[in-house]
Amino acid sequence: MLKKIPPIITPELMKIMMEMGHGDEIVFADGNFPSAAYAKRLVRCDGHTVTELLEAILPFFPLDTYAQHSVGLMSVVPGDTVVPTIWDEYKQVIAAYDGKEAKIEFIERFDFYERAKKAYAIVSTSESALYANIILKKGVVVD
Amino acid sequence: MLKKIPPIITPELMKIMMEMGHGDEIVFADGNFPSAAYAKRLVRCDGHTVTELLEAILPFFPLDTYAQHSVGLMSVVPGDTVVPTIWDEYKQVIAAYDGKEAKIEFIERFDFYERAKKAYAIVSTSESALYANIILKKGVVVD
Amino acid sequence: MLKKIPPIITPELMKIMMEMGHGDEIVFADGNFPSAAYAKRLVRCDGHTVTELLEAILPFFPLDTYAQHSVGLMSVVPGDTVVPTIWDEYKQVIAAYDGKEAKIEFIERFDFYERAKKAYAIVSTSESALYANIILKKGVVVD
Amino acid sequence: MLKKIPPIITPELMKIMMEMGHGDEIVFADGNFPSAAYAKRLVRCDGHTVTELLEAILPFFPLDTYAQHSVGLMSVVPGDTVVPTIWDEYKQVIAAYDGKEAKIEFIERFDFYERAKKAYAIVSTSESALYANIILKKGVVVD
Amino acid sequence: MLKKIPPIITPELMKIMMEMGHGDEIVFADGNFPSAAYAKRLVRCDGHTVTELLEAILPFFPLDTYAQHSVGLMSVVPGDTVVPTIWDEYKQVIAAYDGKEAKIEFIERFDFYERAKKAYAIVSTSESALYANIILKKGVVVD
Amino acid sequence: MLKKIPPIITPELMKIMMEMGHGDEIVFADGNFPSAAYAKRLVRCDGHTVTELLEAILPFFPLDTYAQHSVGLMSVVPGDTVVPTIWDEYKQVIAAYDGKEAKIEFIERFDFYERAKKAYAIVSTSESALYANIILKKGVVVD
Amino acid sequence: MLKKIPPIITPELMKIMMEMGHGDEIVFADGNFPSAAYAKRLVRCDGHTVTELLEAILPFFPLDTYAQHSVGLMSVVPGDTVVPTIWDEYKQVIAAYDGKEAKIEFIERFDFYERAKKAYAIVSTSESALYANIILKKGVVVD
Amino acid sequence: MLKKIPPIITPELMKIMMEMGHGDEIVFADGNFPSAAYAKRLVRCDGHTVTELLEAILPFFPLDTYAQHSVGLMSVVPGDTVVPTIWDEYKQVIAAYDGKEAKIEFIERFDFYERAKKAYAIVSTSESALYANIILKKGVVVD
Amino acid sequence: MLKKIPPIITPELMKIMMEMGHGDEIVFADGNFPSAAYAKRLVRCDGHTVTELLEAILPFFPLDTYAQHSVGLMSVVPGDTVVPTIWDEYKQVIAAYDGKEAKIEFIERFDFYERAKKAYAIVSTSESALYANIILKKGVVVD
Amino acid sequence: MLKKIPPIITPELMKIMMEMGHGDEIVFADGNFPSAAYAKRLVRCDGHTVTELLEAILPFFPLDTYAQHSVGLMSVVPGDTVVPTIWDEYKQVIAAYDGKEAKIEFIERFDFYERAKKAYAIVSTSESALYANIILKKGVVVD
Repeated sequence: MLKKIPPIITPELMKIMMEMGHGDEIVFADGNFPSAAYAKRLVRCDGHTVTELLEAILPFFPLDTYAQHSVGLMSVVPGDTVVPTIWDEYKQVIAAYDGKEAKIEFIERFDFYERAKKAYAIVSTSESALYANIILKKGVVVD
Repeated sequence: MLKKIPPIITPELMKIMMEMGHGDEIVFADGNFPSAAYAKRLVRCDGHTVTELLEAILPFFPLDTYAQHSVGLMSVVPGDTVVPTIWDEYKQVIAAYDGKEAKIEFIERFDFYERAKKAYAIVSTSESALYANIILKKGVVVD
Repeated sequence: MLKKIPPIITPELMKIMMEMGHGDEIVFADGNFPSAAYAKRLVRCDGHTVTELLEAILPFFPLDTYAQHSVGLMSVVPGDTVVPTIWDEYKQVIAAYDGKEAKIEFIERFDFYERAKKAYAIVSTSESALYANIILKKGVVVD
Repeated sequence: MLKKIPPIITPELMKIMMEMGHGDEIVFADGNFPSAAYAKRLVRCDGHTVTELLEAILPFFPLDTYAQHSVGLMSVVPGDTVVPTIWDEYKQVIAAYDGKEAKIEFIERFDFYERAKKAYAIVSTSESALYANIILKKGVVVD
Repeated sequence: MLKKIPPIITPELMKIMMEMGHGDEIVFADGNFPSAAYAKRLVRCDGHTVTELLEAILPFFPLDTYAQHSVGLMSVVPGDTVVPTIWDEYKQVIAAYDGKEAKIEFIERFDFYERAKKAYAIVSTSESALYANIILKKGVVVD
Repeated sequence: MLKKIPPIITPELMKIMMEMGHGDEIVFADGNFPSAAYAKRLVRCDGHTVTELLEAILPFFPLDTYAQHSVGLMSVVPGDTVVPTIWDEYKQVIAAYDGKEAKIEFIERFDFYERAKKAYAIVSTSESALYANIILKKGVVVD
Repeated sequence: MLKKIPPIITPELMKIMMEMGHGDEIVFADGNFPSAAYAKRLVRCDGHTVTELLEAILPFFPLDTYAQHSVGLMSVVPGDTVVPTIWDEYKQVIAAYDGKEAKIEFIERFDFYERAKKAYAIVSTSESALYANIILKKGVVVD
Repeated sequence: MLKKIPPIITPELMKIMMEMGHGDEIVFADGNFPSAAYAKRLVRCDGHTVTELLEAILPFFPLDTYAQHSVGLMSVVPGDTVVPTIWDEYKQVIAAYDGKEAKIEFIERFDFYERAKKAYAIVSTSESALYANIILKKGVVVD
Repeated sequence: MLKKIPPIITPELMKIMMEMGHGDEIVFADGNFPSAAYAKRLVRCDGHTVTELLEAILPFFPLDTYAQHSVGLMSVVPGDTVVPTIWDEYKQVIAAYDGKEAKIEFIERFDFYERAKKAYAIVSTSESALYANIILKKGVVVD
Repeated sequence: MLKKIPPIITPELMKIMMEMGHGDEIVFADGNFPSAAYAKRLVRCDGHTVTELLEAILPFFPLDTYAQHSVGLMSVVPGDTVVPTIWDEYKQVIAAYDGKEAKIEFIERFDFYERAKKAYAIVSTSESALYANIILKKGVVVD
């Protein structure tokens, strides 16, 4: 543990976020996502929700302001009537830390899997909400 | 995730507990314990308390009924006036899952470090209570 | 060994099943299947039958209820007159633990090999029945 | 699987037995033995009994005829009234395959642990009988 | 060394043959074959002939009875007048251990190389006869 | 790079500082220190001074307030007339970030080497000042 | 540290530059470049600027005099009005050490990424200037 | 060092040459060749010339007598007026040890690179002559 | 295979003998010797006798002429009436290749084991003669 | 290869010398020294003499000016009448590059071996002179 770093952030997760550059993507996946099968680099955060983790990392992690979208969500499968209320939670956290509305891209389920495969890392959580997987695209740190 | 397994238990932690045998010890360490320096096998559970983890693992993990003590706690350093209330929490959890009072050994600080070095594994948590490190000695599984 | 976990489940197999996510597949292969040649992750369970293993893992392992089929069997090669009675055994075990009839897909032999190559893991057994290889697709764990 | 090799013998176990030389020792440990903590080389045979394994390997594995004892058992802890009937089973299997009475050494519990640490390999089983751990000392293969 | 296992079989070779399944192939290559360049798994048997090895392994290794051919030989390059007498030796050994005539496929030189690349293992010998490379396809072990 | 983390801190250094616990030590070594020979974990920061690094890490890294000394410096070798002015720089930086005077232990040269060997990590710099090696003992992070 | 070698050059960077041959490329990347994601071999030089590193390595590193271009820069994205003054700095350093004007190729952003992926190594810096990534193509050392 | 083996041959080079089979190729590359970038297996012989190495290895290394060419040289780039006198040196060494004129293939520069990538090994020297890279194709050892 | 190198010498064995220096020892062990348990570096030569190997390696391997003994044999255990005729075979081979009588040291069985543990390598054979283990101490190669 | 770095210095040797610190030792060993058996880090320079290497590295490698001796040689074994003329060569090279007479320590043969074991690295050459092994103790690089 260090001062100013929330204890929920594992040393490996911090290292990975520091290594990432402009345009690299990180996925925060729910508890049923096939994270171990798809991840280039896997960070396990068993027992935590995605929102807890977003709140911890967003003070450090800049979102991409150049790209058209800096946040990716899995779009509801056609025919599914679920309304993912977790998205509002995500939007609030992002707005709170990033100071502006998130630029969100909705990604079809299988396209989402392909994006996850190419992401720099996947953080597996125990999030139990539906449609709770989220991709963040890293932005630029300026002096 | 699997049915009947609490999501807070990481796959690696479950594997390690299954591998352990009679008399092997596992340490659940607080957030300031030098776990990475001392552990033969390290399982990180950043962001969690020790009690949360004990509640999750004790339904699976048998305590040693043969040994004089199946639980080790770090004894209060002479001169220190703190009264570790977390110990009561531990006793309750152990009693609840194990059906009997924990047989506790109090271990001097530096002896505790030596025991931790020899333990089969150390689970590092973000527990912030004082004197919150605990050693469990594994017992026997009978049919 | 742990309480509540059948001893036939190896620590590695438990870890692998916990790591798997929604849609990931696991193959339980008979003793003559080329498991070592095809497996991304190989778990050896020499000396056991597939049915013994299914009985042990199904209380933990959820089958996919979203996919059209959650179970895959190798279809009888055209011209072969064998009637694989082992399938009835599998259906009974699955029905007993999953509470409903298995949704079975029959897969042509060489397609089965391709599926096995892509599976998250292959569990090699010493099952001696014919047409005894089986693929399980993992479902979702809900609270 | 190969002809003439019982399927319960894993490829790794066969390789290890072939590598062993005169005087090297192998431990067949019960399900509660701390095998993973002590083994130089660990072979997991979860779900099997020690007797099943002895029956499979003794046609191949020569016992030491030069040493005073070729078999080691853990002696009953003083005060313990248990009578390990499994020992008779072991003696019968050894006599059947080796053609003569086993030369058995009884080893005090903690000395047994030390011997296990130095053994060439430990085979972990799910044997549930008491005092069921056994050490075999390898003999010489003659033309 | 073990009883009943010819000493020429290395522990690694035995392990590899046990791991192989139905349809997997193993190449016994002569001393000039580029084994190290092509092998997925390489077993060196320097100083031995192919025939010595076939005699040792065929009592254990079942040939495929389902496939059209269970044995592959490199066909004589067009224009080459050599008559590979070693083939008769191979046929005799196979007939002796397998109880029936070998079903031999003749493979063009460069096709043979491609098959060797995909084989489960290549065993490199010091065989000096011409056209002495041989592929065996593993069959099924039945109770 | 991340927001709020000085770019001079490498991802590996941050990870290591997060992994360290109460009482673990880290050495910031000058450019001529035999860091690679002694380090359990080596972090290279070629081209930087020790002071630059202390300024970057001290906002995150708590010094031990329990131990008698939280900072170690190599004492001037008897007979050497050098007065290490770099020490004043270190004291100022520590006082600035830690809010109190550093509790410094002066360590004889060869004892210093032994301490460095046991430290959790050594950070090698290109610091060119004399007697510029410094050991920091990690303290406790409290809520 | 060695005589005649600037301390900013890490041992790993020197080794890599020595290993490179005629036509191999090395990228010096700014602090936001996704170096860890793209590099075959990654050298971290956190806390330094690209210019500092160029000044250190150019006395040793020959630029390619055979190729049409020995230096690559990322061309300004169409529509972007920034004028990268850092380029003048690079040109001066190259001219100073190489004795002639740099032969510069301007590379479209995504082509630059592809070149970086194929480069022998990427050196990640904390350079904060815009359009500051630079590729050097290694030339020939003559007696 | 061994009797009858020239000391310039490294243990690794000898092992690699022994492992190679009929048709495998080895490249002896000059000091500016990008050997580390292209080699499947790299043997460094810094400080030596190609000719010194050829003289040492040719008494052991048979050239291919079956292939149309057993030696490959990089053809002079069109427009380049250099006359590679080193080739005569190579021809003499090969003739001296192989007893007949070398069958040389001239390979266009970029085709040469592709061949080098596929070679069993590349030996990097400090040869400073132009057009000094050479490929040897291994032949057959006969009794 | 190479010209002038007997095919029975494996590439790894040749590499190991080349790496050894003055005073380093190599053990050629019989088929029942616990080679895998004791060897720092193990070379398997299954299926061969020790004499075959000595004949192959002695033209290359210099025996130590400085040490009091350059050859070690295991002395007959007191009470054992066996007369190891294999020793005469060894003496003849050594005399033939080394040009003088071997300077033999007889080593008590357990001292022999200790020597084997410290040897640079152990070569395991399938030699079946009694008391057939032999240690060679490497000498100096002179121009 | 790089400008200003002699080609005889391998990339690995340069890296190792850069990593070494004040007081670390490096051994340049002759061709019969048991380098591979004793080295923590081994750099092979087969085919070269020690003097060639000293000439190449001494412009970069500072000798220790603080220690009583910065150079170690193996003292002539009592009774041996050889006069190692190579020492004069070494003294000349050291004086030429270091600008002053070498401070030489003569080390008894077995003490030399112990020093070599603890050295940061051993460079194995093919030097054939007697008593040609030499230890250099690294000094300090000052601005």
